[in-house]
This record gives sequence, structure tokens and C-alpha cells, in this order.
Amino acid sequence: MQHRQHESTDQPGAHRVTLSQPVSKVGRVPDAPFPVRRDSLRQLVRQAGAGALLVTNLLNIRYLTGFTGSNAALLLDADSDERTLFCTDGRYVTQAKTEVPDLELVDDRASAAALATRASGRTGFESHYVSVEQYEALSGLAENAELMRTPGLVERLRLVKDEHEIAALRKACAVADAALAALIERGGIRPGRTERDVARDLENLMLDHGASARSFSSIVAAGANSAIPHHRPTGAVLAPGDFLKLDFGATVDGYHSDMTRTLVLGKAAGWQRELYELVRRAQERGSAAVRPGAVTKEVDRAAREVIEQAGHGEQFTHGLGHGVGLEIHEAPSLAKKGDGTLTAGMTVTVEPGVYLAGRGGVRIEDTLVVRDTAPELLTLSGKDLVVV
Amino acid sequence: MQHRQHESTDQPGAHRVTLSQPVSKVGRVPDAPFPVRRDSLRQLVRQAGAGALLVTNLLNIRYLTGFTGSNAALLLDADSDERTLFCTDGRYVTQAKTEVPDLELVDDRASAAALATRASGRTGFESHYVSVEQYEALSGLAENAELMRTPGLVERLRLVKDEHEIAALRKACAVADAALAALIERGGIRPGRTERDVARDLENLMLDHGASARSFSSIVAAGANSAIPHHRPTGAVLAPGDFLKLDFGATVDGYHSDMTRTLVLGKAAGWQRELYELVRRAQERGSAAVRPGAVTKEVDRAAREVIEQAGHGEQFTHGLGHGVGLEIHEAPSLAKKGDGTLTAGMTVTVEPGVYLAGRGGVRIEDTLVVRDTAPELLTLSGKDLVVV
Repeated sequence: MQHRQHESTDQPGAHRVTLSQPVSKVGRVPDAPFPVRRDSLRQLVRQAGAGALLVTNLLNIRYLTGFTGSNAALLLDADSDERTLFCTDGRYVTQAKTEVPDLELVDDRASAAALATRASGRTGFESHYVSVEQYEALSGLAENAELMRTPGLVERLRLVKDEHEIAALRKACAVADAALAALIERGGIRPGRTERDVARDLENLMLDHGASARSFSSIVAAGANSAIPHHRPTGAVLAPGDFLKLDFGATVDGYHSDMTRTLVLGKAAGWQRELYELVRRAQERGSAAVRPGAVTKEVDRAAREVIEQAGHGEQFTHGLGHGVGLEIHEAPSLAKKGDGTLTAGMTVTVEPGVYLAGRGGVRIEDTLVVRDTAPELLTLSGKDLVVV
Repeated sequence: MQHRQHESTDQPGAHRVTLSQPVSKVGRVPDAPFPVRRDSLRQLVRQAGAGALLVTNLLNIRYLTGFTGSNAALLLDADSDERTLFCTDGRYVTQAKTEVPDLELVDDRASAAALATRASGRTGFESHYVSVEQYEALSGLAENAELMRTPGLVERLRLVKDEHEIAALRKACAVADAALAALIERGGIRPGRTERDVARDLENLMLDHGASARSFSSIVAAGANSAIPHHRPTGAVLAPGDFLKLDFGATVDGYHSDMTRTLVLGKAAGWQRELYELVRRAQERGSAAVRPGAVTKEVDRAAREVIEQAGHGEQFTHGLGHGVGLEIHEAPSLAKKGDGTLTAGMTVTVEPGVYLAGRGGVRIEDTLVVRDTAPELLTLSGKDLVVV
């Protein structure tokens, strides 16, 4: 693979690329979310007492600018886009002029270093992301600036998704729904196939339906393996009467979907129906608790108490869910501990599971948007016990 | 997906899992490389003036212990494994007893925090990896220790591969070779197919041949797209007379292969044969310069001057190569700048390219092991211009 030189702080020298048109005229489609996100961030930067923020986390840069390359930094001026600088290197200059037409572009391989040399005054940096060594290097280069620790400012904004993000998440979830439906319809889930066969088909079908990639390495667990929460697909062969747990997701426009369904091959035994209905009730209770103002640990509790009352509390070994967006796992966490509260626009998974070692397990997971009224369900695959 | 709670430093409380047998008796297969690697690291830790090293980078932990889970930390005592602690959480305790049978196990979700509380005396930490905020939290917890910045100690060892690593890299390269041969044999490269079709087939064939994953998102570039060094596969349709540039790799046992081949569909034009032969000569010259003691920039120069003499220096827009191992890009870098020298056991790519905008480009890349005599070639696919 052609070498993507990792950003190093040893080449401060940089030259500027002047855009052919004045920034104000270049503009961007009016409904682009990036200028709005940058303005929201400016409020947080000013509240932190800084006049600028050096953003070096690539996902945060994508969120703020739409840039999708592998090397960039952003020096966000707390007052305006006019004094905000975006830096990437020669490989991405053309792409940057398309993706980030509305910010002044600096062309330098050492993107963070190049912008540190241009910083002045109190300048926040992503101290939750920048390493101790990188910080030392950057503060040496930032001769006219005082670098301030300002952890998690962009992540605070990313907690609440805007409608552009929810539209991408909706697409990603629809791709996963379509892939599962196609897999079942073509008879891809049947005795004799391996967990690996099923995982491969599912991932290829997501690509066929428009995913740019899978969200994470799919979990396909058959029979007793379904009792292992994070089982990796193996050559294990599907057999009649097996539970089959499928936990998978698609990436669309950088946003991740996350869904788990548990099916039964052939006839379901009584204990399987019981276990399934229990987890399903817990999943319904947890989803119903997802609303603005809800305390995260209480959402977890709503689902967990259903399982505890059935005497399976010990077999529900993980948290209820997590935020999902540009990362497959992000804030907020829905777990036993956690006093955070939900806000409209947050996107979370609700995924209770009960795992009976040596026998089998059930997990049912949806991705939901917190809405003022009822939560919006993004993963639409049915939740009746599917017997294939 | 079941929530993989990210390590947080807010739960110092931890309890110890006592192994069923005394550590000394548990042992590990005699040829396991991990104890040897830990002993080599101990020398560097002592040279740095520390009595222990807190390792938190998961790839470094895998290199030192063989652990493949998603949460772990290692407190390496500078004198012995007996006083060395390995920490992961309940999800991975069973796995850890298999993968890391020879170290005392601590079960705690906040792995780095749990080991920081157990550190004493001068303790190095991975300051090139640990964020400013995490460092603040860890130093607060390390009441009996003085944390010292010790960047890149494990990476220094990882520069030179041992035979266990080279065996894994050899396997990964063989998988990529086999996938390309199978793709050509089955007629998968022909006019009418899209770049995306070819990329998908290549990646599925690598999985068929034993890859656990692809090493990176494959580059498949047809016709004029081949002049874009880092082109992403699109719906562009392969046409007769096109160059087709394939840059792809397989992951086996955590190690990455990296190979580029450029083919021609149908009859090759004169300019294509000329360009191909030029890049091939440059690739041969670069490979021949790969030997112990060679200065990295001079290896780059050996290949680059061939291309410059042909008047195409401006169209060779990137470095000659990079190290490859547990990461697809690691040290050393073979580029215009760089006074580092090669050592036997380093693994590098040699990948010159010439890109004629709007017409097409050629890149030829191999993965090589630096050996005392001639370099060992790991990517064995032929380099004659293949016309399909």
C-alpha cells in the first residue's frame, strides 16, 4: 500500500494554497451541517475560555468539516470561519477543495504541527486524544499560543445527533435490515452451513445493499456458541434446533448501524421460546424507557429487572446498550452505573441478553433515536422469533 | 453489538484471580516468543532508568503476551515475569488463561488504572500513546510510583521481527499471492467488471485462503484511475487496454501483508510497456538496496534515481516504502528523508510508482525481509507485465 505517512511534528514549514475564489463566494450547499456544527462548537470553546481550538481527531474533523481523508488538522477560531484554518497534505488537496470548500486550506504533511505554529493566544487542544509526547512537541511549536487542555468538546456535540446524522444512521440500519432479509430469503441460514459462511454472506449482502463497509466484525454464533456474548464466527456447523445469534452492522457515510437478532433453526424447543420471550420483554421494557430526561442507569434497570425477576440476572452479563454514530461505540453508555440523562437526538442501542453456558443464549438489539415522544426505531427487522 | 466498555480510569477497585496452578508450573510451549520479547524489553526499561513499564497499547501487549482481546494492560517488572502483572476484565479471563498462562492475572475492567494503583518506584509509561488526560488520571492513581515518560520502547523491539513474526508475515503474503492467482485464473479480471467487483472478489478470496481479515481497504484502480495513487474502488468499468492497479493485503495471526501489482487488460500499448518496465527496474534497484546497514533515504534514492533519469521524478509522488508487521504502516519509513539504517529482520515494502495524470499509472510493490545476504522476498506473485 502506498505509504500514508503518519503525521509527524518534525516539519513545521508549510505553504498556503490560495483558493481560486474568495471563501465567501465558494460556499457550500445551504443545508450542509458543518458550519452549524462549527458555530455550536465555538460556544463551547469560548465557554472554556479559549480563543481557538486545535482539532486533531480525524472523526471530529470529519464531523466538523466533512473531510474524509487520512491526514488533517483544524484550527477553529472561536469567532468565525474566516479565521479558521484547515490543514491536509498534497495527496488530499483536490479532495479537500471539494469536501471543505469553505475554509482556508493549508497544505502540510505535518498537519497538527503546521497549525500549532499558526496558533495564537489561548488555544484549546484535544487533551483526551493528544498523547503526552505529541503535546510536548506541539507546545514547543506553538510559540505564540498558550495551549489549554479542553477534553471532549466535539464529543459533547456528537452526543446529540442532528438530522443529517440521523438520516445516515437510518440508511445504515436499513442496509443491515435488507441484508438480513435477503440472507433469510435466499436460504442462507440452514443446517450444514458454518458460522463463517453466514457471516461472510451477511457482510457481502450489506455491501451489495450500499454499505461502504461493515460496522464491526460480525458475530455469528450457533447452538451453544450463542451463549458466548462476543463469539467470533468459526467453522462450527449450523444444526437443526440451534439458536443462531447474529450481531452485525453496516457503515454508510461514516455512520454505523448495530443490530442483533436471534433465530432458531428448525423447531424451537420450549426453553428456547421461553428464553426468547423473556429477552424480548426486557428489550421492549428497555426501549420504552428511552426518553428525554431518563437517567441512563434507570434505562438499564428497566430491562434488567425483567430478567432478574425471571431469575436470570446473573446471565445478563453486560450493559444494556451504548451510543452509536461515527463510532460503533460512543457515549452515552446504558449500564448498571451511570447518572447521565438522555436527550432528544441521542442514538443508542438497547440490547439485553441472557446466556445459558453450554446451552445457548439470546440477545435482541435495536438502534433507537431518543425523541420527545416515543423513541424512533431505526432497525426495523422483525422481533418475533424467526424459525428458519 | 454487545457493549465493549472502553477502559476508564474511574474504577480503581480490583480483585485478583489466582491461577489454579503456580505460575512457574503453568509455563508455555517452549518455543513461545513472548518471554524472550519481555526479556529484551526489560533491558530497554532498565536502560531508561525504570524498574517497571506500564504497557497500555494493545498491539504492544499482543506482541509481548499473545493476548488478542480488546481490553488489557501489562505492568512489566524490569527484573522478572514473577513480579509482572497482566490485567484484563471478566469477558476475557478464560481467554487470558489460555493466551497468557505464564503471568499473574488481575481481573479489572479499568485495566491501566488497576495496574497503576499497583505500580511502585520509577515506572515508565507509553507517553507516545497515552493521552494527556489519561496520564493525569494514571499519575493520580499511581500513589507509590513515579511515572516516567518512556516513549516507543516496545516499538523499538518491534522494528526487528523475530522468526515467529516473519513466519506470520510469510503466511499473510502467501494468502495474498494465492488470492490474486485464483482471481486471474477464474477470469475475475476482464472488461465489463467494475473496480468494486474486483476488490470484493480479491478480499473474499483472501478470506477463502485463510486470512482473518484484509490488511486495509483494497485499492483497485482501472484506466486513468490507476494514476491516482490511493484510488478507492468505484463502479468504474474495466475496459480493454486499461491498466489495472491492485494494492491489497491479508491479515494472518495479526500480521499484515502488502503487495501491489499492475496488469493490463487486452493488448498493452507501447507507452504502457515502457512505463511498466521503468517502474519494474526501479523496484528491482530499490529491492537490491535493502540490506543491513543501508541508510533508509539511500534505499529510496536507489529506486528514485532510475525514475528521475527517465524524466518521471515528478510523477513518483510518494516514498519508496514502509515497515509492515502488526500494523500495516510502521517504522522504518523508506523515503527521501531519513537517516535511519536497516537491520537484518526488519520487514519493509518497496513500492515505487509513476502516475501519469489522466492516462494511467504503474506501481509495483513487494514485502521484503532484510537479511544479511540478499533480502527475502515474501510476496511471490510474478512481476512480468501480466496481460489478461
